[in-house]
Amino acid sequence: MAGSAPPAAIAVPRQTGDASHRSGPRRDVLPAHPQRCTYLGPEGTFTEAALRTLPEAVTHELFPSGSVAAALDAVRNGDAGAALVPVENSVEGAVTATLDELATGRPLTIRREVLLPISFALLVRPGTTLDDVKSVTGHPVAQAQVRRWLARHLPHAEWESAASNAEGARLVRDGRFDCAFAGEFAARLYGLEALVTDINDAGDATTRFVLLERPGRVSPPTGRDKTSVVVWPDRDEPGALLELLREWAVRGVNLLRIESRPTGEGLGRYCFSIDAEGHIGDRPVREALMGLHRITRKIRFLGSYPRADRISSAGDPLRANHEFAKAAAWIARCVEGIGEVTD
Amino acid sequence: MAGSAPPAAIAVPRQTGDASHRSGPRRDVLPAHPQRCTYLGPEGTFTEAALRTLPEAVTHELFPSGSVAAALDAVRNGDAGAALVPVENSVEGAVTATLDELATGRPLTIRREVLLPISFALLVRPGTTLDDVKSVTGHPVAQAQVRRWLARHLPHAEWESAASNAEGARLVRDGRFDCAFAGEFAARLYGLEALVTDINDAGDATTRFVLLERPGRVSPPTGRDKTSVVVWPDRDEPGALLELLREWAVRGVNLLRIESRPTGEGLGRYCFSIDAEGHIGDRPVREALMGLHRITRKIRFLGSYPRADRISSAGDPLRANHEFAKAAAWIARCVEGIGEVTD
Amino acid sequence: MAGSAPPAAIAVPRQTGDASHRSGPRRDVLPAHPQRCTYLGPEGTFTEAALRTLPEAVTHELFPSGSVAAALDAVRNGDAGAALVPVENSVEGAVTATLDELATGRPLTIRREVLLPISFALLVRPGTTLDDVKSVTGHPVAQAQVRRWLARHLPHAEWESAASNAEGARLVRDGRFDCAFAGEFAARLYGLEALVTDINDAGDATTRFVLLERPGRVSPPTGRDKTSVVVWPDRDEPGALLELLREWAVRGVNLLRIESRPTGEGLGRYCFSIDAEGHIGDRPVREALMGLHRITRKIRFLGSYPRADRISSAGDPLRANHEFAKAAAWIARCVEGIGEVTD
Amino acid sequence: MAGSAPPAAIAVPRQTGDASHRSGPRRDVLPAHPQRCTYLGPEGTFTEAALRTLPEAVTHELFPSGSVAAALDAVRNGDAGAALVPVENSVEGAVTATLDELATGRPLTIRREVLLPISFALLVRPGTTLDDVKSVTGHPVAQAQVRRWLARHLPHAEWESAASNAEGARLVRDGRFDCAFAGEFAARLYGLEALVTDINDAGDATTRFVLLERPGRVSPPTGRDKTSVVVWPDRDEPGALLELLREWAVRGVNLLRIESRPTGEGLGRYCFSIDAEGHIGDRPVREALMGLHRITRKIRFLGSYPRADRISSAGDPLRANHEFAKAAAWIARCVEGIGEVTD
Repeated sequence: MAGSAPPAAIAVPRQTGDASHRSGPRRDVLPAHPQRCTYLGPEGTFTEAALRTLPEAVTHELFPSGSVAAALDAVRNGDAGAALVPVENSVEGAVTATLDELATGRPLTIRREVLLPISFALLVRPGTTLDDVKSVTGHPVAQAQVRRWLARHLPHAEWESAASNAEGARLVRDGRFDCAFAGEFAARLYGLEALVTDINDAGDATTRFVLLERPGRVSPPTGRDKTSVVVWPDRDEPGALLELLREWAVRGVNLLRIESRPTGEGLGRYCFSIDAEGHIGDRPVREALMGLHRITRKIRFLGSYPRADRISSAGDPLRANHEFAKAAAWIARCVEGIGEVTD
Repeated sequence: MAGSAPPAAIAVPRQTGDASHRSGPRRDVLPAHPQRCTYLGPEGTFTEAALRTLPEAVTHELFPSGSVAAALDAVRNGDAGAALVPVENSVEGAVTATLDELATGRPLTIRREVLLPISFALLVRPGTTLDDVKSVTGHPVAQAQVRRWLARHLPHAEWESAASNAEGARLVRDGRFDCAFAGEFAARLYGLEALVTDINDAGDATTRFVLLERPGRVSPPTGRDKTSVVVWPDRDEPGALLELLREWAVRGVNLLRIESRPTGEGLGRYCFSIDAEGHIGDRPVREALMGLHRITRKIRFLGSYPRADRISSAGDPLRANHEFAKAAAWIARCVEGIGEVTD
Repeated sequence: MAGSAPPAAIAVPRQTGDASHRSGPRRDVLPAHPQRCTYLGPEGTFTEAALRTLPEAVTHELFPSGSVAAALDAVRNGDAGAALVPVENSVEGAVTATLDELATGRPLTIRREVLLPISFALLVRPGTTLDDVKSVTGHPVAQAQVRRWLARHLPHAEWESAASNAEGARLVRDGRFDCAFAGEFAARLYGLEALVTDINDAGDATTRFVLLERPGRVSPPTGRDKTSVVVWPDRDEPGALLELLREWAVRGVNLLRIESRPTGEGLGRYCFSIDAEGHIGDRPVREALMGLHRITRKIRFLGSYPRADRISSAGDPLRANHEFAKAAAWIARCVEGIGEVTD
Repeated sequence: MAGSAPPAAIAVPRQTGDASHRSGPRRDVLPAHPQRCTYLGPEGTFTEAALRTLPEAVTHELFPSGSVAAALDAVRNGDAGAALVPVENSVEGAVTATLDELATGRPLTIRREVLLPISFALLVRPGTTLDDVKSVTGHPVAQAQVRRWLARHLPHAEWESAASNAEGARLVRDGRFDCAFAGEFAARLYGLEALVTDINDAGDATTRFVLLERPGRVSPPTGRDKTSVVVWPDRDEPGALLELLREWAVRGVNLLRIESRPTGEGLGRYCFSIDAEGHIGDRPVREALMGLHRITRKIRFLGSYPRADRISSAGDPLRANHEFAKAAAWIARCVEGIGEVTD
């Protein structure tokens, strides 16, 4: 029996008010700026709006980054203690730039997630009416979500894409376009007014953001957690995916999201980005992760963190932990030769 | 025993030189323009280059569409008999616009696929040297594939994205930028010259395109085919994915690609876009498709068509068909009471 | 697409009053004696009692065979048209002699099954009382089922086993023992009387018998059927069992019984005797059988026949057949290019 | 994270010359007679011959028991420290009496297994020749294994079964039969001589025996071990079997034997007796057992003990243990936030 550190003995700290382990300096990197937090900019994006819903928005100095890669690199090289970036949208799907950046480069850890309902406002220079509008701008993702609205209310307006919604607002301010789709909160920033609000063809579009930090001790389980990993199957063909899924299924762990991403090794070579219900400190999740570690070429743990949604878990982590603990106790009795005394 | 049409009796036409069934008029739509073929434009894109490798490029009148949606709609409404659009890139992953357009709206069928190696040329106005370059443009996807090259050779040039590589070339012609990344073939079109060619950080980037038509009779199996479907699992959680994969695995059908896409019903609700090895006329594939039809909420068949790659199949469709046929013959003997006479 | 006989086209005859196909002469064997039916004897066994519950008991001449092997050989060589033998007991488990005889030698087919509740009577010569009893006999299987009763009521009586319960009764008649455990019906046959009846430690012991004939056309489905097979996995290790089970599971076919039996090729080499819910004419069963045929070294079909129990099926064969037929119809529409017209 | 005894911390004793823990007295039962060892008698059986191959045969006082149940009860009530009984035969399959006795009653533990090649000698009173033989006896299991030999060499001799092979030899000695099939070693015991030896239709028949003791500390892993359990599925239908098998398969544990046995709760209700490769102290086996504990209604651990056969293991327990340990160490690094430092 190996002498390696037993998983059950891992001392995940109890949840307390003291979260110093999260933001404390690490010895293996240069002193960081934990008080600074970056986000996918520019100012006025939905990402900034999402960040403003977090306590970090009050306690940290916030600054925009020009791209997901730049935001993550700011954390990696110590310019920021944390970064908020979008990872998934209920209409557009995965934000692949984020998935790919997290799968490569120096590892980062997801500390939190934020869900933000997405609806657009039509921002105009003060005084503009719908009848005045000849040209429209916004990010291509916005366009996809307001296409039907546009066809009904502004069938003749010409669309040109901007690099971001906030950038679109800036271009309206500068007179390049008559109006822009953006978050209502961007109006004030650019001196515009919201002519129409709550625009979204999908009705209930939501974007999910993750707050990333450099790796550190995992926060304790809350009973409503998520765990994110990226796995590179041992074999190239997608048939290996069946085996990956079996590792979760056999332990009763529910998967919440799975994305295939190219590994860059050629068409048909994929890695898989996975969110599962539960925490690495929960025995079923831990055992499933160990199973993946055994059967995959490579696995990257991206963190265990509290779920932001209100959806009830499919499984009950406390009960599952209890079942796993009972089974472990039974094994101990078997080894001692008192297997059925209390079973 | 039900009297419905038995699958084995389906008369998929033998492969012959006569492919008239593919382009012939259909009675349930207005007369189309089968001689016209559209592609994701504008002129000078990689999609046009891919189309030029097909016989359709000679026999059809080609015209660009402004977006994937526009190209597909041109086929749906009869403006074109076929459309070529990109569906997957070995570096960037799925072209989600194509996947989502194929999963919704009036059904279309994949008739062919084309693989095109992607390398960029640096296009300049004649006479420009690398030292002259201050500004660079191109599609964001191109930027992702030339980033390292840029950092090495043009570290100080300023990048601004264009709506397509071809559009970037046009902007260089018009003097807006000093150079653009695009396919070498775009140079002539815009009166530019290729200062550097064969640029791609990834080395062997490939894009896969599909030729779409309105549904019609499936082409006969060639022995090296692919089948594409989109499935919406019955249950919402991704746990249902395990069951989907099992339907293929138990029949020995190899999967080539799987993508989860949001259904638009909220975060965590997915459909799956799947490419499998083999043809709907191959018994293993047919049986797996029937299995999916039984266990899913909805399934859309996107076509069976010849593989464009040179990779050997993991399975041997002829041998698999033979095994399936032998099993069917054995069943018939069992029912007749002569089960082991020749077994 | 292969030209082999399509499974859906198999003409399993509709259920009618005419069952002549079952007992009619076959051309490939010598004229049999279909009016004769044998059973595992001697007279007075539970097997005879079970046979007496069948219509065959009235229409056929019955005769005992000395062993399961002898009974089956009587059918194989034409001495009998049918044989009834025990196959499984709720207390003792499988009757391995029957399983092994069915797995080897010339194939036979199960036409019916019979369930018989098993309780023993204590048979004595007229006038004997419990106090007189010093010695007891019966078949070892009987002993296992009356052990507790014996310990309570005849703790001092000496047990000696007989070759069958009926043989035990004969020995009591001949004065060799004071009493025998046997079916109550055996009393009259041997001039004995039943001192105590309804003895069985287990309370609700049941034995399952099967009526075997030479292979012939399978009887039509009744909607409440069973299918029996023996399969020899391709690979030797029991890990192959998982794959066998998956063939049933993925088609939603419920298994009712599974037994491993040695193949005679050495310790650790097994074949598997399986009863499944449904009829070979039911599409899910047929497809699962074809799956087994593909992945196993050898498979022997033992018949599809009506269930004798009153337990409701886990699945609904009519509904399953309908789902399979719908899927087949959808495939036909896909091939024709009208895939979603009615889906 | 629960405070229960972590499985990895179980102190399975290292393998040493000191095996005192195996035979030492236990406090919770009356003083046993560990120096006494019983076996399935009577004297002269193959079971005795198998026992004579063990060191216990020298150090212990041996005595026969009249049945498997009696032998096991002798251990349970302290009359013997150990019992040897047959459990499986390569020709006849499982010895169901042993399986059923081990699944019920006070738990016992398998300490060793013994494999004995089975061939029969034809024992006669000195002077008898084959031509003199009119009557033959032996155990029914022997009869099954010499049937073809009898048909060839003694086609006219009359067979009558005896309660055991040794009992048959005794009856020959007493003049009741002319010859008996038994182990050659029984000749001397009953003053007979072996007229023919090495008789067995199957050629290489082998019987497997297990040495049972009262539960105590499990012996340490040897690297070539077996683990035996009985499991009662949570759900009644055999479909639950698929889930049981998956628990082993997903951890890469190879199964060596699986038997279904009736639970006595009615036809179609089974428990499963399973032998797996490896030791409860091996991480894959331990984790699989814990999985079974979680998903089954009841599980009984019957012991981990050295394999007696010379067959190479399908898996390599040392390598598997190493993979599991590496995975556990990786988890610990993930929790600490140093997940990829050495991976």
